Amino acid sequence: MRIRSMMLGAAMALALDANADEGMWLPSQLPGIAKNLKNAGFRGDPKDLADLTRAPLNAVVRIGGGTGSFVSDEGLVVTNHHVAFGVIQYNSKPGRDLIANGYVAADRAGELPANPDYRLRVTVGFDKVTDRILSAARGKTGRAYFDAVDAASKALVAACEGEKGYKCSVATMFYGRDFYLVKQLELRDIRLVYAPPRAIGNYGDEIDNFMWPRHAGDFTILRAYVGPNGEPADYSPDNKPYRPPSHLKLATEGVAEGDFVMLAGYPGITYRHRTAAEFADQVEWRLPTSVAVLKALQDVIEAKGKGDKEAGIRYAAQLQSLKNGIKRFSGELEGLQRSDAVAVRRDDEAAMLAWLATQPEGKALQPDIDAVMALIARGKDVRERDLLVGLLSTQTQLLKGALAVDRLSVERPKPDEQRETGYQKRDEELIRSQLKQIQRRYDPAVEKALVTSMMLRYQQLPDAARLPEVDAVFGRTPADLAAALDRIYAGTGFGADAERTRLFAASPADVAANRDPLLVAARALRPAMLRIEDERKSREGDLLRLRPAYMQALIAYREKQGKAVYPDANSTLRVSYGKVTPLAARDAVTYASLTTVAGIVEKNTGKEPFDAPKPLLDAIRKGDFAGYADPKTGAMPVDFLSNLDTTGGNSGSPVLNAKGELVGLNFDSNWEAVSASWMYDPRYKRAIHVDMRYMRWLIDKVYPSPALLRELGVPRH
Amino acid sequence: MRIRSMMLGAAMALALDANADEGMWLPSQLPGIAKNLKNAGFRGDPKDLADLTRAPLNAVVRIGGGTGSFVSDEGLVVTNHHVAFGVIQYNSKPGRDLIANGYVAADRAGELPANPDYRLRVTVGFDKVTDRILSAARGKTGRAYFDAVDAASKALVAACEGEKGYKCSVATMFYGRDFYLVKQLELRDIRLVYAPPRAIGNYGDEIDNFMWPRHAGDFTILRAYVGPNGEPADYSPDNKPYRPPSHLKLATEGVAEGDFVMLAGYPGITYRHRTAAEFADQVEWRLPTSVAVLKALQDVIEAKGKGDKEAGIRYAAQLQSLKNGIKRFSGELEGLQRSDAVAVRRDDEAAMLAWLATQPEGKALQPDIDAVMALIARGKDVRERDLLVGLLSTQTQLLKGALAVDRLSVERPKPDEQRETGYQKRDEELIRSQLKQIQRRYDPAVEKALVTSMMLRYQQLPDAARLPEVDAVFGRTPADLAAALDRIYAGTGFGADAERTRLFAASPADVAANRDPLLVAARALRPAMLRIEDERKSREGDLLRLRPAYMQALIAYREKQGKAVYPDANSTLRVSYGKVTPLAARDAVTYASLTTVAGIVEKNTGKEPFDAPKPLLDAIRKGDFAGYADPKTGAMPVDFLSNLDTTGGNSGSPVLNAKGELVGLNFDSNWEAVSASWMYDPRYKRAIHVDMRYMRWLIDKVYPSPALLRELGVPRH
Repeated sequence: MRIRSMMLGAAMALALDANADEGMWLPSQLPGIAKNLKNAGFRGDPKDLADLTRAPLNAVVRIGGGTGSFVSDEGLVVTNHHVAFGVIQYNSKPGRDLIANGYVAADRAGELPANPDYRLRVTVGFDKVTDRILSAARGKTGRAYFDAVDAASKALVAACEGEKGYKCSVATMFYGRDFYLVKQLELRDIRLVYAPPRAIGNYGDEIDNFMWPRHAGDFTILRAYVGPNGEPADYSPDNKPYRPPSHLKLATEGVAEGDFVMLAGYPGITYRHRTAAEFADQVEWRLPTSVAVLKALQDVIEAKGKGDKEAGIRYAAQLQSLKNGIKRFSGELEGLQRSDAVAVRRDDEAAMLAWLATQPEGKALQPDIDAVMALIARGKDVRERDLLVGLLSTQTQLLKGALAVDRLSVERPKPDEQRETGYQKRDEELIRSQLKQIQRRYDPAVEKALVTSMMLRYQQLPDAARLPEVDAVFGRTPADLAAALDRIYAGTGFGADAERTRLFAASPADVAANRDPLLVAARALRPAMLRIEDERKSREGDLLRLRPAYMQALIAYREKQGKAVYPDANSTLRVSYGKVTPLAARDAVTYASLTTVAGIVEKNTGKEPFDAPKPLLDAIRKGDFAGYADPKTGAMPVDFLSNLDTTGGNSGSPVLNAKGELVGLNFDSNWEAVSASWMYDPRYKRAIHVDMRYMRWLIDKVYPSPALLRELGVPRH
Repeated sequence: MRIRSMMLGAAMALALDANADEGMWLPSQLPGIAKNLKNAGFRGDPKDLADLTRAPLNAVVRIGGGTGSFVSDEGLVVTNHHVAFGVIQYNSKPGRDLIANGYVAADRAGELPANPDYRLRVTVGFDKVTDRILSAARGKTGRAYFDAVDAASKALVAACEGEKGYKCSVATMFYGRDFYLVKQLELRDIRLVYAPPRAIGNYGDEIDNFMWPRHAGDFTILRAYVGPNGEPADYSPDNKPYRPPSHLKLATEGVAEGDFVMLAGYPGITYRHRTAAEFADQVEWRLPTSVAVLKALQDVIEAKGKGDKEAGIRYAAQLQSLKNGIKRFSGELEGLQRSDAVAVRRDDEAAMLAWLATQPEGKALQPDIDAVMALIARGKDVRERDLLVGLLSTQTQLLKGALAVDRLSVERPKPDEQRETGYQKRDEELIRSQLKQIQRRYDPAVEKALVTSMMLRYQQLPDAARLPEVDAVFGRTPADLAAALDRIYAGTGFGADAERTRLFAASPADVAANRDPLLVAARALRPAMLRIEDERKSREGDLLRLRPAYMQALIAYREKQGKAVYPDANSTLRVSYGKVTPLAARDAVTYASLTTVAGIVEKNTGKEPFDAPKPLLDAIRKGDFAGYADPKTGAMPVDFLSNLDTTGGNSGSPVLNAKGELVGLNFDSNWEAVSASWMYDPRYKRAIHVDMRYMRWLIDKVYPSPALLRELGVPRH
């Protein structure tokens, strides 16, 4: 590790300098980096991209947890198959398996309504509201600062959502420096127009997940509808296609290695501008500790499941989720170590601070920066406590239920807007259904073993890092713990569905008077949970107050380096640009930037997930690729790889060529890039896209819909 | 599958035409293909390679189950670390772990004697003896033909080995057409001179096995010694280094992609010239059936091992061997399907037969060829029976032991030279030790379950494909089988070590009179086993007699195509040539032909098998590669990849450049090439070699031995 770090340190330093393609830019920042965009190959005017509420960026929409884009003036939207999967599933029934067979709507009447909770949001407003958010917070600190920001945000959102048909939210850029009110038109009648079979849309499934080379046709085409008056409406046969403010144009040419590409979408969260100490915490403590703790829980479930098959089945979903978490955390850790992220960020921050000390504004910023550092350093004292206590209410079934019932009983008497997030009226249905699910997910022996695994670790924390309430409930020694768990789980009646249903519906007073040992334990733990929550909010309040100084220093330092700074991702619309790029993944291993249909045949085993449909295999064999094939090789493309800067939430993001035409849909990243939420390493960060030539070929030759191609404005061949 | 086959059929046809690099040539064939060798880039005179008993090929020796080569005039030999592993292990003891630490002999006195059964053989004679082998066989058929060839071979070997210090054997080329007497000088005092640590020599171990890119320094240097009189001798401090008839010269330059390379070694067995029906049998029946049967046995052991940990441990070795077999067979099957081998061979054979029908010699050859085809077709009737009955005596422990004791009792009364191979005097020690091993490898419940798995399958064979003796012992229904096994295993005393020892030593009459139910069963099965053996030998006899006609037709047909034919591999010295070649393993995946030390660092986890030693990591970090680095990239090479034609037995084979200098040691093939024992597919067949620059750098800079470099005739840098 040490050696690797020392070797790669130099390489990374070089790499960072050369890295022009990192960045999830606010559209308003693009005119400021126009030169970079031009140099990279963009042929349009960056000014045209500056307003995300105007064409072409207002064609890019939030849809079903991912990103989509309008591609016709009658509301056609392309997104990923996996982003529209719920819609496909909702329309499948015995005798009409759209997952297996895909779907081609014969005409408008054949377009199938999505599940009623499926939403598409068009961003129509993006206004800076920093002063309005911070006016009441100024002068406050800690929890008071947090609450002031929270209240101001909620008030702005409530006012904005007063206008019918809109969803609003407040987003902060640069961690508390700037605040924006995002206003989105919410469309509720979305219909399925065209979906490939699962064995095309999700070819390779879990095995190929995070992998390149990839061979999935991960796209689906939907259409947005509005009421006869043009307003958002629930599904009705009387609705008519939505006419979007703008739409993207499909390219008729494809991409080749080295070509300029750009992408717009709604990336969820990144940590690129976190402090060096936070990088170190993530790599040196949080990721390895999380992996170790979750691995211990995995071992518990696997061991118990071996002896008791029924228990094994009950915990299958939790086990799968633990494994996914472990895989992801391990991948992130591996990637951050490979990129030597801790040292790179440390050296970068040290250089910034040294430079800052020489600057006139340094003196003003330094106290807040010092305070950020101190606050983050203090986090170390309780981080393991908070991790373990947090897991108590996520990695248990019955205890989690009891904690929820207890907390609900103290939130319910409050006015709804003052109830804690997660315990408001609109959350109650979810809590009820989770209490119901316990019936098929809980086994007392497994839960006791899981709690034992977490609490034995907890018991080893120093006194100052423990909570008296937790000690009181679970004891201070392994023997105490075993006795407490035996007593609680032998005595509780909460394992019965009827009892949980009764308590969910019971009055706060009834819940408070209940003597069930598990409820008594939850009640005893509550003050500790509330204290942790209060500490978190207080800390977040102070970070919101102080971190802008750190960001200001960083922005100034980057400016001096000749670089702009994009805010970390926060689910707002961002633009990134780069190029079609192969991946030299390891010594002697190179992955080309384009895959071809030959790879579909190579991977095909006839068994899920490599069970390409016969019509596709027949069409590949027939080889009628005219108009779609790579002009140089004659091969029929499937997916392509770029160095575009993406993260979760970018699923379905349109990938555009230098002329702004749609050439691909983003749908995944490579395994080596799992750590990109913290650091963009140009050697390894890649994004995986469906090639629009493959989509057009499927619509033209394999599961034909000439009308759809006509509406998309692309020729048949 | 079908589609894949149809697509790849055309590709393969093209590929076969372009394939100049296939071939495991007899040295005597090389002058005949001199033009090809020259065109490929060889700069020497192929005539110099024609006699394997003369320089330079007599520098290439058999050693420890693999291949080695002399590299100094004082008996230094290089081979693979894994070929010399037994020697390294033999010299390791508490406090001197040569496996972990490697070994550098300080001087001649420090060279450590190998395990006493370690042998090196120098080929000194290679004479065609076809007439002497076949004179008594001519006119005979079947078993008589087999026995005549067997007797003549044994007689020639006995005469040849009359000369002290030599080992002799008879090898047939082209399946019964030509016979050669191979005479080898056998050296018995081999010493360890230089071995890298296991974490270099076997870096990556099982995980990297069959994998490219590879980063192992799989080499070891030994020295052969002889008695003071120059004759082969057991180890003695008075022995002196052997002066080989010739030795190879280490290259001081390295290789680059596309460079000519050639290799000499002792490949074990290939099936390239088998008939189309045999290809079909292998792909359509033998490999899938073997995988299914072995997989069922694996499942039995794993299921039993779950319930009974002790039983699991007893069967760990057998389980590992089953898994290896399943992996290998599956890989071979996958490869042959990928190469569409059945169709390619079928079309090729059909074209040959069509051409033959137009030739004057066709009429003479056709009857024998028809007879070969008929004989092979008849094999179908009993192939599953023979497979299952064969497994009865390899995949059981106690039953195998009882069968051996029973058979030994009928062989012992015969003169030794008439006893069946495997039951001669020299085999008895092995049988005794196997009977001993049963003690820690046998569990009655597991053995019964294994026999049940095999025999339930057997019971479903049609009447004509079953053997009355097997039916009598194991019954005709699952219930009979269960009852028989319960009776036999409950009643046998053969599970006791003392009883097995007693019966091993007992007189044939005592064994014949023994009433132990397992011995009774073995005795009852014996006639069936002998009948299968007789059928096999009869069939082999006829194939030896008839197949030369098929080979003659094939050779003539290839001649017409302008191609020479090499005989299938049979552990005799062969030469192949080709070039340093990357591997386009799959769509969009390319593996470069050279790996570098950067890959060692990338793969290093600090944990076995990726736990590169600190001195190596330090040296890599230091970067002192002058004189060894790739002149173009400056990178320090580790291993390289070629399209050389190899198979098992080629481990340690010297890889030579166009000038005949040593540039690498063969040590593995890629996974995609497992099927190459049947078909050389130029798209996928690769061989993996240690780069001699890496070996020289390790000897120079990491674990230095200046004296060794001096003796190897290469400079220090």
